Amino acid sequence: MRTISWDSETPAVRLIDQRLLPEKLEIISLRTVDEVAAAIRQMAIRGAPAIGAAAAYGYALAGQLSLATTVEALLDDLESAAVTLRASRPTAVNLAWALDRLQGVAQAARKHGPEAVRERLIEEAQRLADEDVEINQRMGCNGAALINDGDTLIHHCNTGALATVDYGTALGVIRTAHEQGKRVHVLVDETRPRLQGARLTAWELETYGIPYEIITDNAAGHFLRSGQIAAVLVGADRVAANGDVANKIGTYMLALAAGDNDVPFYCVAPTSTIDLNLPSGKQIPIEERDPSEVLELTRRGKPIAPSSSKARNPAFDITPHHLVTAIVTEVGVLYPPYTETLTRAVHEAQRK
Amino acid sequence: MRTISWDSETPAVRLIDQRLLPEKLEIISLRTVDEVAAAIRQMAIRGAPAIGAAAAYGYALAGQLSLATTVEALLDDLESAAVTLRASRPTAVNLAWALDRLQGVAQAARKHGPEAVRERLIEEAQRLADEDVEINQRMGCNGAALINDGDTLIHHCNTGALATVDYGTALGVIRTAHEQGKRVHVLVDETRPRLQGARLTAWELETYGIPYEIITDNAAGHFLRSGQIAAVLVGADRVAANGDVANKIGTYMLALAAGDNDVPFYCVAPTSTIDLNLPSGKQIPIEERDPSEVLELTRRGKPIAPSSSKARNPAFDITPHHLVTAIVTEVGVLYPPYTETLTRAVHEAQRK
Repeated sequence: MRTISWDSETPAVRLIDQRLLPEKLEIISLRTVDEVAAAIRQMAIRGAPAIGAAAAYGYALAGQLSLATTVEALLDDLESAAVTLRASRPTAVNLAWALDRLQGVAQAARKHGPEAVRERLIEEAQRLADEDVEINQRMGCNGAALINDGDTLIHHCNTGALATVDYGTALGVIRTAHEQGKRVHVLVDETRPRLQGARLTAWELETYGIPYEIITDNAAGHFLRSGQIAAVLVGADRVAANGDVANKIGTYMLALAAGDNDVPFYCVAPTSTIDLNLPSGKQIPIEERDPSEVLELTRRGKPIAPSSSKARNPAFDITPHHLVTAIVTEVGVLYPPYTETLTRAVHEAQRK
Repeated sequence: MRTISWDSETPAVRLIDQRLLPEKLEIISLRTVDEVAAAIRQMAIRGAPAIGAAAAYGYALAGQLSLATTVEALLDDLESAAVTLRASRPTAVNLAWALDRLQGVAQAARKHGPEAVRERLIEEAQRLADEDVEINQRMGCNGAALINDGDTLIHHCNTGALATVDYGTALGVIRTAHEQGKRVHVLVDETRPRLQGARLTAWELETYGIPYEIITDNAAGHFLRSGQIAAVLVGADRVAANGDVANKIGTYMLALAAGDNDVPFYCVAPTSTIDLNLPSGKQIPIEERDPSEVLELTRRGKPIAPSSSKARNPAFDITPHHLVTAIVTEVGVLYPPYTETLTRAVHEAQRK
């Protein structure tokens, strides 16, 4: 089952509401652009590749819902949808990347009239989603070569099928290694505040039959010092041109602990996550989410702190490139100097 | 109000049940050694200096409860109490330190008969508790010299009045700086799995009127990279002879992030926490607690992970001495080389 798909009859964007997992697997149907943007903002769907696909489907949905009879009016409606979707979350570049791609398709098809634009947008959103699955499988193969039989791995946040259209990035690498018959064991960072590790990654690993244990984010350093960890795997929300990685809050300290113990730290991300326009991580916008995510345990509604407490809640951090051993992409495993290898990889992916 | 005190009438050890904070401030009365040991094990009382005092009071209570009419029989009962108390938690050395001290007093008083032993034990437990408060205030003064007006500080776990008999270690330093009129702002690590930061430290800071914001443990690295943090302050459960620090899980990664950003990392601990018998952190036993603390959010009883999930739950980690900028004790601020300065500090404290 895909995390996100297109319902041509309604029409609607259908997706798994990840806020309800692991207790409940529920598919929700989003019939307006505002609903899609709200689902991204409220993290019913999350994960850089998945929100890229959501933005693409949301944009195609805008085409279907537009009452415009001229191309110009349709493009105006699409532009307004793009503004709404683009503002839903700031850090993952895949969202902007997907919208740029669909806007390009709309422009290219404009000479064929509004119906052709509408049709081409659905096709392109579907193609983008299909490609995401293929790309994940290719990353899985490329990355699995780095995993050995018997490895214990640390994984942060959720980077599986739920974070993508299907299969996964960092978790996709672990799945491929497992499917190749390598025995792997995963220590799953619970990933506060929203517990994507304890809720979503644990649920996926359970489904795939891959052995795992949940740990608090605090405990990763202890296990890295123990000498029992073969590698750390994470995804990415945006990779700057120099290899600095924006990823779920906590990634930076995890990378420091891996580095301090000579444990390889792998970032697994499609080339769509690479932003060559930003020279370094300093320019990546870091979303700060609602303090209630920290003060009330996610989805439980019960306060854990004094009622007058305030909180800060940055959702991502920047891991400097020198802490990243390699970046696994669909076109290969990239090593430093990233300023060269990332540019080459993006160009190679664009040629395909 | 003291975290722990002696009730001579019942007799009993009275303490704040920290599992119920911040919702409820409740004092419980422990009337047997088993109850005291259970309170330590289940973390109704926690924090290295506080469990040292609890063990001392528990040992004195054993003297009161013993029906022995000879010194030999009394010492046998006390020995059995010491075994029970010593086994309650393994990492903090203050527990063993307090029991050693009271056992020494019992031996010294044996020639005066069982009643004298019983009385001397209560006096000594009281003295140990009184000294703890004095020592904390001295550490507060010594450490406050390191804090400047306007500083934003990161603090891990709870090291305040609740972690000691009264006043606090690392939080005691912050209190003293605040009382000296320095404006400080504290980013409070929530401290998973048991949330001592979000529950206990936030509650104390609220009481003292010190401004603070709660952050997830994951977010500390992001703020340290921002250049806005003046220092990180933590307590300790045991300090080895070379300066390696055993402290609440997550301390090691926090120290790495402080070091990576040239932010001073201060450990605040009385000399009773220094264990010169252990050459390095490698020999410090690390308690692994029940997986339910990770899988069910503390005291909420609601699972956050799939019901079949397993977890690992080390309660402490080791921060290597080279990441510790200074160790603040009651006899002064110690700097490397710790093998020399720690030994000197312990001897100086013993002479007093």
